[in-house]
Amino acid sequence: MAEERLQEFYDEISEDLTRCVQFWLTHSQDDKYGGFFNCIDEDGTVYDETKHVWLQARQTEAIQMMDRLIHWVREDDTDIRQGRPPLAGEARSESLAVPMMLLCVTHELQTLDPSLCARYRDIQEWSVQKALSHVQREGTVILENVSTSGTELPGSLGRLMIPGHAIEAGWFLLRYAKQNGQDELAQKAIDQFMNGPFARGWDDECGGLYYFLDADRYSPVQLEWNMKMWWVHTETMVAFLMAYQHTRDGDHLHTFARVYDYCCSKHVDKKRGEWFGYLNRDGSVSMRFKGGPWKGCFHVPRSLLYCKQMMSELLKRPT
Amino acid sequence: MAEERLQEFYDEISEDLTRCVQFWLTHSQDDKYGGFFNCIDEDGTVYDETKHVWLQARQTEAIQMMDRLIHWVREDDTDIRQGRPPLAGEARSESLAVPMMLLCVTHELQTLDPSLCARYRDIQEWSVQKALSHVQREGTVILENVSTSGTELPGSLGRLMIPGHAIEAGWFLLRYAKQNGQDELAQKAIDQFMNGPFARGWDDECGGLYYFLDADRYSPVQLEWNMKMWWVHTETMVAFLMAYQHTRDGDHLHTFARVYDYCCSKHVDKKRGEWFGYLNRDGSVSMRFKGGPWKGCFHVPRSLLYCKQMMSELLKRPT
Repeated sequence: MAEERLQEFYDEISEDLTRCVQFWLTHSQDDKYGGFFNCIDEDGTVYDETKHVWLQARQTEAIQMMDRLIHWVREDDTDIRQGRPPLAGEARSESLAVPMMLLCVTHELQTLDPSLCARYRDIQEWSVQKALSHVQREGTVILENVSTSGTELPGSLGRLMIPGHAIEAGWFLLRYAKQNGQDELAQKAIDQFMNGPFARGWDDECGGLYYFLDADRYSPVQLEWNMKMWWVHTETMVAFLMAYQHTRDGDHLHTFARVYDYCCSKHVDKKRGEWFGYLNRDGSVSMRFKGGPWKGCFHVPRSLLYCKQMMSELLKRPT
Repeated sequence: MAEERLQEFYDEISEDLTRCVQFWLTHSQDDKYGGFFNCIDEDGTVYDETKHVWLQARQTEAIQMMDRLIHWVREDDTDIRQGRPPLAGEARSESLAVPMMLLCVTHELQTLDPSLCARYRDIQEWSVQKALSHVQREGTVILENVSTSGTELPGSLGRLMIPGHAIEAGWFLLRYAKQNGQDELAQKAIDQFMNGPFARGWDDECGGLYYFLDADRYSPVQLEWNMKMWWVHTETMVAFLMAYQHTRDGDHLHTFARVYDYCCSKHVDKKRGEWFGYLNRDGSVSMRFKGGPWKGCFHVPRSLLYCKQMMSELLKRPT
């Protein structure tokens, strides 16, 4: 029973979080020019001094930036299309990434400044509706891209499923639903954004979640489709632990434990800290670095911190 | 001895070319709207009707297009940067792809119209010099990107090696050198663009050439770095057969045979025609389709046709 392992999960996750934070504190800071290195090899060696864009804007700038983002997303996206008008015949598509990101970042901002809650109520409700438009085929799949009118697009683009993305959106939606007392939305978040994509995305043969899938079971056209990615698994841990915390349904804790065990045996570097992010389908390490152009000090510590906090609450209030 | 297999190579390659051409003739043509489908599953099913950009321009348009390309490459690239000026601190880099492509396409055009030879002499010599600027570290590596002054760039971008690209550039250079009686260039093409990248890129454990490598043996940052790609192997077949044809050095035919045997056992679909393009590191098929957004009726038939033509010449004039 996974319930009996709660203390073990808490202890291990606490240790991993400490190792992870220590890794970045030790190796990431640029003492000479300031800022942070993010291309860091398994042992801490900096293999590229490029500092890829990093979220360190101060809060006031973040709020102005958010207003601009909302303008681009809801009113006029000319600026971010670099002035290029849509090509003739080009299908306008809407990605799940946009409402997910808006829901998450407005949540972070209003956590820092609760007076922002009213300002963001409208965009958050809009984001929830947009996210729900990706539930397609009578609720059986989450499609990453849909038309501007919320219908399935033709071809590989329209059939694309990213299980990790759907599950991450699931916990953003569940958190929002819990805070706003929206029980029906909470249930949809768990059933359609977590359980469905997990069942479809889990690799029964090798373990781990696939990165990309095609809803009609064609080969996805993304070369890295069968890789196992750290962020997919960190977000799935948060999602199913949050689902368990909300429902106390042991199945959700069981799924959490499956993903947790996979991560411990494949991603975690107990010796040097942080996780190997990029695994081949069979779970072997494909790229040995801890930090790279798209992997920084973000998903691993965020997931470990949230899981630690939820475990802490669960242990104080045993079911 | 690979020499004794020349007739076998010729027969098998001829059959494979027939199957390949038959595959595209049967499945690719859009009888309703014209043009060609290029997203085609292993059995011929069209899984996406999008027609990705296809080289079907007529010759005169191609010549005007080439003049425009030469202008962009040598004089002013503002148009193709979408009007965006370089970012402050952005490293200007030159990719091996540009001179390779110019050398190849001007060759094709002047084959169709020999009067163009004089017109392209200058850009071809410029392309050769630009390609040679990617020979770095005292001739031991071909780096995909170099600075505008022909030196190594810092970081992962600067250390990037694409063995298949270097080897493909190798046979473009060797063909050019042979046509223009440049013996020293022919030797560089074979030693530095073919032998070096092959030795470095071949996966001794699983066979096949890696897609991306880092010159200092860090993990490449490209997720698909360890995949085995059809075009890498089709171009390596052409390169080493051309090197053998030029030198009659059995080592080159031996390398050709190694790659040919790998392709026969991993890429070729004898049953339904064409090749599985995208393999995992271990040679298993990653994506089952024959055609996709970046794989059409190009590398496989071109390589098989060129190899068949070279085999035919070799068999008529045995060494």
